[in-house]
Amino acid sequence: MSRFFSSDYSSLVPYTPGEQPQIQNLIKLNTNESPFPPSPKAQAYAKAAAENVQLYSDPTARPLHAAIAKTIGVSPDEVLATNGSDEILNFAFMAFCDKMHPAAFADLTYGFYPVFAQLNDIPYTEIPLAEDFTIRKSDYLGIGKTIFIANPNAPTGILLPKKDVEEIIASNPDNVVVVDEAYVDFGGESCVDLIHKYENLLVTQTYSKSRSMAGARLGFGVGCAALITDLNTIKYSTNPYNINAMTMAAGIGAMEDEAYTRENCETIIKNRTWTMKEMQKLGFYVTDSKTNFLFAKHNRISGLDIYTKLRAKNILVRHLSPERIRDFNRITIGSMEQMQALICALGEIVREAEA
Amino acid sequence: MSRFFSSDYSSLVPYTPGEQPQIQNLIKLNTNESPFPPSPKAQAYAKAAAENVQLYSDPTARPLHAAIAKTIGVSPDEVLATNGSDEILNFAFMAFCDKMHPAAFADLTYGFYPVFAQLNDIPYTEIPLAEDFTIRKSDYLGIGKTIFIANPNAPTGILLPKKDVEEIIASNPDNVVVVDEAYVDFGGESCVDLIHKYENLLVTQTYSKSRSMAGARLGFGVGCAALITDLNTIKYSTNPYNINAMTMAAGIGAMEDEAYTRENCETIIKNRTWTMKEMQKLGFYVTDSKTNFLFAKHNRISGLDIYTKLRAKNILVRHLSPERIRDFNRITIGSMEQMQALICALGEIVREAEA
Repeated sequence: MSRFFSSDYSSLVPYTPGEQPQIQNLIKLNTNESPFPPSPKAQAYAKAAAENVQLYSDPTARPLHAAIAKTIGVSPDEVLATNGSDEILNFAFMAFCDKMHPAAFADLTYGFYPVFAQLNDIPYTEIPLAEDFTIRKSDYLGIGKTIFIANPNAPTGILLPKKDVEEIIASNPDNVVVVDEAYVDFGGESCVDLIHKYENLLVTQTYSKSRSMAGARLGFGVGCAALITDLNTIKYSTNPYNINAMTMAAGIGAMEDEAYTRENCETIIKNRTWTMKEMQKLGFYVTDSKTNFLFAKHNRISGLDIYTKLRAKNILVRHLSPERIRDFNRITIGSMEQMQALICALGEIVREAEA
Repeated sequence: MSRFFSSDYSSLVPYTPGEQPQIQNLIKLNTNESPFPPSPKAQAYAKAAAENVQLYSDPTARPLHAAIAKTIGVSPDEVLATNGSDEILNFAFMAFCDKMHPAAFADLTYGFYPVFAQLNDIPYTEIPLAEDFTIRKSDYLGIGKTIFIANPNAPTGILLPKKDVEEIIASNPDNVVVVDEAYVDFGGESCVDLIHKYENLLVTQTYSKSRSMAGARLGFGVGCAALITDLNTIKYSTNPYNINAMTMAAGIGAMEDEAYTRENCETIIKNRTWTMKEMQKLGFYVTDSKTNFLFAKHNRISGLDIYTKLRAKNILVRHLSPERIRDFNRITIGSMEQMQALICALGEIVREAEA
C-alpha cells in the first residue's frame, strides 16, 4: 500500500478470483466455464468487429439490448448490458443500497457480494443458510433490506423455487430484490417474467456460463425501465463505453444462436447427472445442483485433501475456505471426457485413502 | 429515476459521450478516433482469442502488462491495464482522493473529471485556464490537492511543457499527480520516465487514439509499484476480470507493432499541419494542437453555426457547451481525404456567410 491510498479503501479485502493457470493439459474445473467454444456466429461477429475497433463501441448498446430483449422476452429498455455480470452487480449495490438501505444476502453465496458492500460502504447482513445449505425463505420475508439472491446459489448449486423467490420480492416492496441468475440455464426457472409484475425486481444474468463467453466479459440486468434508468445513471458516470465492440458483436451472435446454447446446456445437465451418480458411488455427498458445477464432500477424505490430490493429477477444482464448507469442493461440469478423467482420478484417490 | 435510487447518486449528472451515429457516408470527426484500422497483428491476435472466449481472461493481465512495460520502458509491476482509460481514471479518483484529499483540475479539460469526483463524493476545484487556454503552472504549485492534468489538454489541444509538469509533481509531494496522456503520441513528451523519480506520479495512457483501438476499450496507468498495488486493490474489489480476452490479445499485438503506431502518428501530425494552415486561410483561429484534433473558432461565424452547417454536409465534429469555448469546435484529424472534404465544406460555409 502507498502512503497516498485513501483511508476509505485501505481496509478493503478484495475478491479472490479463481486461478486462471496457463498450464498445458490441465483439466480446468475451477471457475465454472463452459467446455464448449462460443457459438460460431458469436465468433464470426467478434472477428468482423475486430477489424474496425478504431471506432468507439456504441455506448447505448442498442442492438445488443435488442438481441437480449428478444431472446428473454422483455423490451430493450428493460435491459442493461455490462462488462461482465460483476459490473451490473456493483452498479446495483451502488444504485439501490446505502446507509438507509442496507444489503442482505446468504452467508454462503457469491463471494463478491460482501466485497461490493464494503467497496461502497454499505452495511450488510449475512443470513446463514439452513443446515442443508438451502435458503430459508422465512429469513427474507419483509426484512426491509436490499436483497441479493444467487439462484441457483453458488457454491452450493441449490435452487430456491420460483414461488419462494416471488414471495420474497412481494414481501419487500420498498427494497430492490436482485436475483442473480448466473447459473439459471442449467435447470433453474428464471424470474425474468416477474419484472413486469414487480417494480422492485432486478434479475442479472451472464454470458460467462451457458453462452461460453466468460472471456468476452458480458453480463446484463433486467428490470422495469425505471430501475434500468437508475443503473444507466451509474454507468454513464462510471464507464459509458463499458462494453467493447467485439464483445458487443459476439453477444448479439450468441443470442441469435440460442439453439446452440440450449443444446450445450442439455449436454452439461446430462454430464452432471452422470458425474453425480459416479461420485455418489465413490462415497461423496453431492448437493442437488441445478448449475454447471457440483458441490461435493467425501465421507472420509477432507476437502483440501481431495483438492490437493486432484491438482497433483492435473485436475483443478475450487476449494473454498469458509469453515462451514471446507470439507467440500466445487467442481465444474465439463465435457464427458473431462468428467470421465475426473471420476477416474477420484476413484484412485478414494482407493488410495482406503488402502 | 425509480423510487429505489439511492440519494447518494440521485443528483449525479452523468458524462455525455460524443455521439456514435450509425449513418452511412458520414465523415466522423467528433470523438478523436483514428482513421486507420488497428494493427494487423492486433486484429490477428484478437481473432484468435475470439475462438476461445469460453475461458475467463487472465485477471492478472500479466502478458499484456509485460508488453506495455517493454514498449514504454518500465517494469510490468509499474503498469495496470483497464477497461479503457476511463476506468483507470475512476480508480485513481477512488484510490487517491477523498474528503481529506480533494481533487483539482482545469476548468476546461476532460469532462469526465468532475463526474468522477461527484460519483465518488470527492470535493474538487476547477482551476481556470489562462485567457489563451494554457495551464498556468503557478496555479498548481504546492496546492496540496490530488491533481489531474490532461497533457496535452482536451479540448484545447495545448501541451504543458514536461519541465512544468515535473515542477507541479515535485511541489505536491504529499498528493498524487495524475498526468492523463491520452493524446501524448501526437507531439507531446511523456512523463512516464518520471515515475522512477516521483512516487506521487501516475501517468495514464490509452489505446483509443494512436493505437486505433477505441472500440476495444483499453487504457492503462503507469506509476511506482506501490501506487499500482493500491489501484489493484480497487480493481479486485470492482471487476477483477475487467479486460476481456480479445482486447487483451489485441493490446499485446498493438504493442508488438509499435512501428505501425509511429507511422500512423506521423501521418496524423502531417495531416494536422496541413489542415491547420488551410483553416487559418479560411479565417479560423486554431490553437497550437499537439493532439489528433484541432480546436478552432472562426472570426465571424459562431461555433454552433459551423457545427450545424458541417453536419448538414455530413461531417460530424464536436461542439461543447461551456460559455468560454462555445465559439469553438473540436475537430478530429482524420485521413487526408477526410481533411480535404472538411476544408472543402468549411470553404463553402465561409463563402456562404460572406456572400
